[in-house]
Amino acid sequence: MSESRFPSSVYADRLSRAATHARDAGLDALVIGPGPDLDYLTGSRASTFERLLALVVPSSGDPWVVVPRLELAALRASAVGDLGIATRDWVDGDDPYGLALQGVSPRSALAVSDAVPALHLLPLADRNETVPVLATDVLRHLRMTKDDAEIDALRRAGAAIDRVHAQVSGFLAAGRTEREVAADITAAIVAEGHSHAEFVIVGSGPNGADPHHEVSDRVIEAGDVVVVDIGGPVAPGYFSDSTRTYVVGTPRDDVAERCAILERAQQAAVDVVRPGIEAQAVDAAARSVLAEAGLADAFIHRTGHGIGLSVHEEPYIVAGNSTVLTEGMAFSIEPGIYFSGEWGARIEDIVVVTADGCEAVNARPHGLTAV
Amino acid sequence: MSESRFPSSVYADRLSRAATHARDAGLDALVIGPGPDLDYLTGSRASTFERLLALVVPSSGDPWVVVPRLELAALRASAVGDLGIATRDWVDGDDPYGLALQGVSPRSALAVSDAVPALHLLPLADRNETVPVLATDVLRHLRMTKDDAEIDALRRAGAAIDRVHAQVSGFLAAGRTEREVAADITAAIVAEGHSHAEFVIVGSGPNGADPHHEVSDRVIEAGDVVVVDIGGPVAPGYFSDSTRTYVVGTPRDDVAERCAILERAQQAAVDVVRPGIEAQAVDAAARSVLAEAGLADAFIHRTGHGIGLSVHEEPYIVAGNSTVLTEGMAFSIEPGIYFSGEWGARIEDIVVVTADGCEAVNARPHGLTAV
Repeated sequence: MSESRFPSSVYADRLSRAATHARDAGLDALVIGPGPDLDYLTGSRASTFERLLALVVPSSGDPWVVVPRLELAALRASAVGDLGIATRDWVDGDDPYGLALQGVSPRSALAVSDAVPALHLLPLADRNETVPVLATDVLRHLRMTKDDAEIDALRRAGAAIDRVHAQVSGFLAAGRTEREVAADITAAIVAEGHSHAEFVIVGSGPNGADPHHEVSDRVIEAGDVVVVDIGGPVAPGYFSDSTRTYVVGTPRDDVAERCAILERAQQAAVDVVRPGIEAQAVDAAARSVLAEAGLADAFIHRTGHGIGLSVHEEPYIVAGNSTVLTEGMAFSIEPGIYFSGEWGARIEDIVVVTADGCEAVNARPHGLTAV
Repeated sequence: MSESRFPSSVYADRLSRAATHARDAGLDALVIGPGPDLDYLTGSRASTFERLLALVVPSSGDPWVVVPRLELAALRASAVGDLGIATRDWVDGDDPYGLALQGVSPRSALAVSDAVPALHLLPLADRNETVPVLATDVLRHLRMTKDDAEIDALRRAGAAIDRVHAQVSGFLAAGRTEREVAADITAAIVAEGHSHAEFVIVGSGPNGADPHHEVSDRVIEAGDVVVVDIGGPVAPGYFSDSTRTYVVGTPRDDVAERCAILERAQQAAVDVVRPGIEAQAVDAAARSVLAEAGLADAFIHRTGHGIGLSVHEEPYIVAGNSTVLTEGMAFSIEPGIYFSGEWGARIEDIVVVTADGCEAVNARPHGLTAV
């Protein structure tokens, strides 16, 4: 097995199931551009933008790929080569849209992967004389439900990011800037086995009150609460994502108390996860603990997101999502509390749904960690 | 002026001109998602994917932005804040598409930026009851023609990457791997003033024959020809991109001869650039020198691409592109020759069209450099 992808039989199986799902959905073909869907179906991490590269999976018959000749060698290193998928290569000046849809009748029911940019979607729609729909509905069930090899990859990613969090106490200190701490964390993320650091959030003091703060030159002070939300991909491309909240010195009583409530909220959400419940029930479980403590308004985002080859994917753990959880789904559970201009806290683990509950791939202590 | 963007008056002017172009094109509004078009119009480098963030520029009236509440603070740090552009923020569970098109009549003539993914384009098309067109035609003329501040940024980027190429001879040596050399180059790219290294191609020996090879663990050998194609963004986000070809030791006679022909081809293309000629004439100038020397089949890609806030943008220097060059356009001129399984070479400068010719922002020697 190549380090960067699964054995080709895995992709053959996924392609076959994708075609079946497409047929069941009344579609004639899926058109999959670069992005996690292409990676999922072929192991290719192509990232062309202005030149069309697409996998076409008809609901019956063999798939093919349209590919700029410059990208052909790289694409063949994916399962496309091993599986002998037909390649239709093109050079600047050719018409890639005609090539992509050769053998597809006009006005076919096409579905495109959600990352296909307008630059390519609109010419494909023109050529097909009918606007495609999103392939997300067809691919969602495949990608949401992780197989054993994927779950193993998520476990390895979880263990790797846990080893980084175990070092964070050594990086955090009054007098250092968020950026300095983030540089140490970035190096540790790579040293612990990630391909790269995808995101490193170090939100100290008031910066912790902004859930999407990344890093700044703010100097960390004694007493600061610090949100550390970090992750990256581990071969063959599955992401880690874990948040812990630290405090420099001794926390104020109200901070300690509220962080303890947050910890209970996170645990309550983990506790309700099992096959058969809806995604939104997990969100509600975290939210109700915070609401009972008068902290409803402090929790200003959804409880979590699916994870795999993308950092954010289905199923989203959010009010209104009635997706029923099934064994093998993987997602974050990450409630947070935010007090604008003052401080914030968040606790995040990735969990995988099991036959009767869930398994967390992260194992670091959840409470406020004093450094 | 913030280091990461131009003064807000620059963006006010661009927004106003974009609205005028939209009106002239018979459009009712532009819908601009994260990507270089949004950066160009507001200085925002937002990169949300699954949550809709879009600038809407009506052809008459004031623009507005629809933005996930989590991204609101970051967006306000762009010119959106300084210019007082109306923000319509939303949280998970809201309908961002309805919010984006509030005040826009159904079946309006909308144009979307080319990076808007299918995930958002298809719901916007549904909501508008009409499929948008690409905003590229409207934005192309704005983005292709660089103003003085942009040209200055490209000059600074060119000088920065020149300083890196000046160090490459010291990094390249028989016995080192491409990856080791690339790591040194990456560090130098950052040390010389880029925000990060966007791409580092070190193609030694047979790897140089693949124009899209990046790096590998191949050990560089005496006599290898090595293609080094490198670049990254310099504040406020304008890219460098320069290729030079090196040889470890003394080149074979046929290698030296062919590289001299390539140098003439690159110079021939530079020499024809002036306002009034078509983009494809620049491509033809390089191609004809190589063809006359029997190397037509060795030149397997277009001659160049526009550059600015994107590494690749309009105008593309390619056969079939009848875009007429005007003062202020900036693009690469980068013919290459590739001999599969053996070696390759490429020479690339960025040039800016002037009143009567062009100015190269790169100044390193163009010939095969022996190390």
